[in-house]
Amino acid sequence: MRQGHQSWVFATRPVIVGRAAIGGPFEATGPLAEDFDTLHGDLMLGQESWEKAERVLMEEACTKAIEKAGVQKEKIDFLLAGDLMNQIISASFSARTLSIPFLGLFGACSTAMEGLALAALMVDSKAADYVVAATGSHNGAAEKQYRYPTEYGAQKPPTAQWTVTGAGAAVVSGQGKGLRIQAATIGHVVDMGMTDPFNMGAAMAPAALSTIESHFRDLALPHDHYDLIVTGDLGRTGHAILSELLPKHNLHVPLEKYTDCGKLIYGENPNVWSGGSGCGCVATVTYGHLLNRLQAGEWKRILVVATGALLSPISYQQGESIPCIAHAVAIESE
Amino acid sequence: MRQGHQSWVFATRPVIVGRAAIGGPFEATGPLAEDFDTLHGDLMLGQESWEKAERVLMEEACTKAIEKAGVQKEKIDFLLAGDLMNQIISASFSARTLSIPFLGLFGACSTAMEGLALAALMVDSKAADYVVAATGSHNGAAEKQYRYPTEYGAQKPPTAQWTVTGAGAAVVSGQGKGLRIQAATIGHVVDMGMTDPFNMGAAMAPAALSTIESHFRDLALPHDHYDLIVTGDLGRTGHAILSELLPKHNLHVPLEKYTDCGKLIYGENPNVWSGGSGCGCVATVTYGHLLNRLQAGEWKRILVVATGALLSPISYQQGESIPCIAHAVAIESE
Repeated sequence: MRQGHQSWVFATRPVIVGRAAIGGPFEATGPLAEDFDTLHGDLMLGQESWEKAERVLMEEACTKAIEKAGVQKEKIDFLLAGDLMNQIISASFSARTLSIPFLGLFGACSTAMEGLALAALMVDSKAADYVVAATGSHNGAAEKQYRYPTEYGAQKPPTAQWTVTGAGAAVVSGQGKGLRIQAATIGHVVDMGMTDPFNMGAAMAPAALSTIESHFRDLALPHDHYDLIVTGDLGRTGHAILSELLPKHNLHVPLEKYTDCGKLIYGENPNVWSGGSGCGCVATVTYGHLLNRLQAGEWKRILVVATGALLSPISYQQGESIPCIAHAVAIESE
Repeated sequence: MRQGHQSWVFATRPVIVGRAAIGGPFEATGPLAEDFDTLHGDLMLGQESWEKAERVLMEEACTKAIEKAGVQKEKIDFLLAGDLMNQIISASFSARTLSIPFLGLFGACSTAMEGLALAALMVDSKAADYVVAATGSHNGAAEKQYRYPTEYGAQKPPTAQWTVTGAGAAVVSGQGKGLRIQAATIGHVVDMGMTDPFNMGAAMAPAALSTIESHFRDLALPHDHYDLIVTGDLGRTGHAILSELLPKHNLHVPLEKYTDCGKLIYGENPNVWSGGSGCGCVATVTYGHLLNRLQAGEWKRILVVATGALLSPISYQQGESIPCIAHAVAIESE
């Protein structure tokens, strides 16, 4: 199971038997719109608050993924979920609605692959037959919690990112047909002393580098092994930084095979500054767009490297730098 | 591995090779003082803020547990940690200091057993050789984040609980000597519609009941199987409620063998209202007091049922009830 210092290779190659991506009205205007299962026209999703809307996104992602897996909800053993809200209330309240045994996770945007890696571990070790991994975010809820009231119309620098309104979920199982989870690498915290919460891409790029480096070292893979390496969510700024860092660290990943979920989700739209971010970004782009293309045979194997900035408004206000982390999961076609 | 719907039985019975409990000045006045590894006389631990003090508690708990395990820090494969702070900053910043591959967890006070259960799963499935599970809390940091400024001296009802200033950590391994982890049961969210954040014990008691019920059902154990069942942290109010609920639900646990970490940590001190609470309560009482007595041969097997109230100030302000959860881990002497 364990290989190298911080990686797992899954002998049974657990299967992603169902997956879903749910988005909001702004995501519907982006180039990946067709890859979403549901796109809501109403940012509030008919709820009274952004926080409650975020919860509905996650509940819908889980329900849709389970439905697409063709299994009954009662067959799901565990839900592994987290989000950006204080006390991960979107995940906890979704777990209440779904009534599935629940393990709450937090790794900021890295939570998506933290959950998928643990789900694969549980299935591979026969600790579960079916596990759902889910994360999500809501632009309004994240702005309210982390930044200024949106009514202020506060200007942002070009390195800022736009929090995705969306949620993604995957059902992992030891049996059935679908894309397979080959391996995972768990990151450690990397903090290069960056303190600017409007430049998360730059803060997180070294964490992505560290995890990619560990992954190739632990698994002793050639650097061109994957048809695609995708980070989430460094945005354009972080993507450019990591593209420079990789060869400098002797990681000869073909750069045309390296992209980022935050770059993909809104295309070249300049209104999102450096690109998309949030737990919902890597989750919807992976469980929608990327795995659709993998399933269609465009690629054979991809490595998804979800990055997270583990700061809080309090740690920032107290002068702390931004600790970052990245977890990677290798997914292959059958 | 998996048994019943939501439990794991660990064939290799992973070993707790090191453990530590760190406390603050108020904990030093309680009846369990002797069971702590370190007791700080300064509530600030020489730091500039309560949040930074909380982090130091967790770092010390991890470092001490690793030291007592007699392993080098570099041998630790994963750190599984969480706390009550927004974005679990105590855990994330501790992971930065310790530089161990990190999986962030959140289950409020249930995080202690969520982490221990996952650590045992990783070791049992050969996904890790050594895993540290840690949680902590700080009275000042929790009051500031969840309640009123302490300077207000706001009165509290007798059902309120006192957040423990402390942290606990355990090192779990497949080899070595020590107490052994036999099984774990992962809870699902239970919400009986309670909305009073000053009565967490009553809100959480049904979640503890649900997990205890599942544990005995999944493992087909007689109800008097354990020498001690201990919840954490229902306090006196929640302990009294669960003591009534157990027989009503045909769980014939001998009530003299049922206690609660929140009742134990401060004894009969009326200044803590219903008792102790917080991630640091169940963690320090378990990894200090309870496991010391288990190791001393006073008991052969105990079931620790950590309970968590998964609310946030926002969910409370938006009129939501309190979703609760409990995770149980069975620990035995060699």
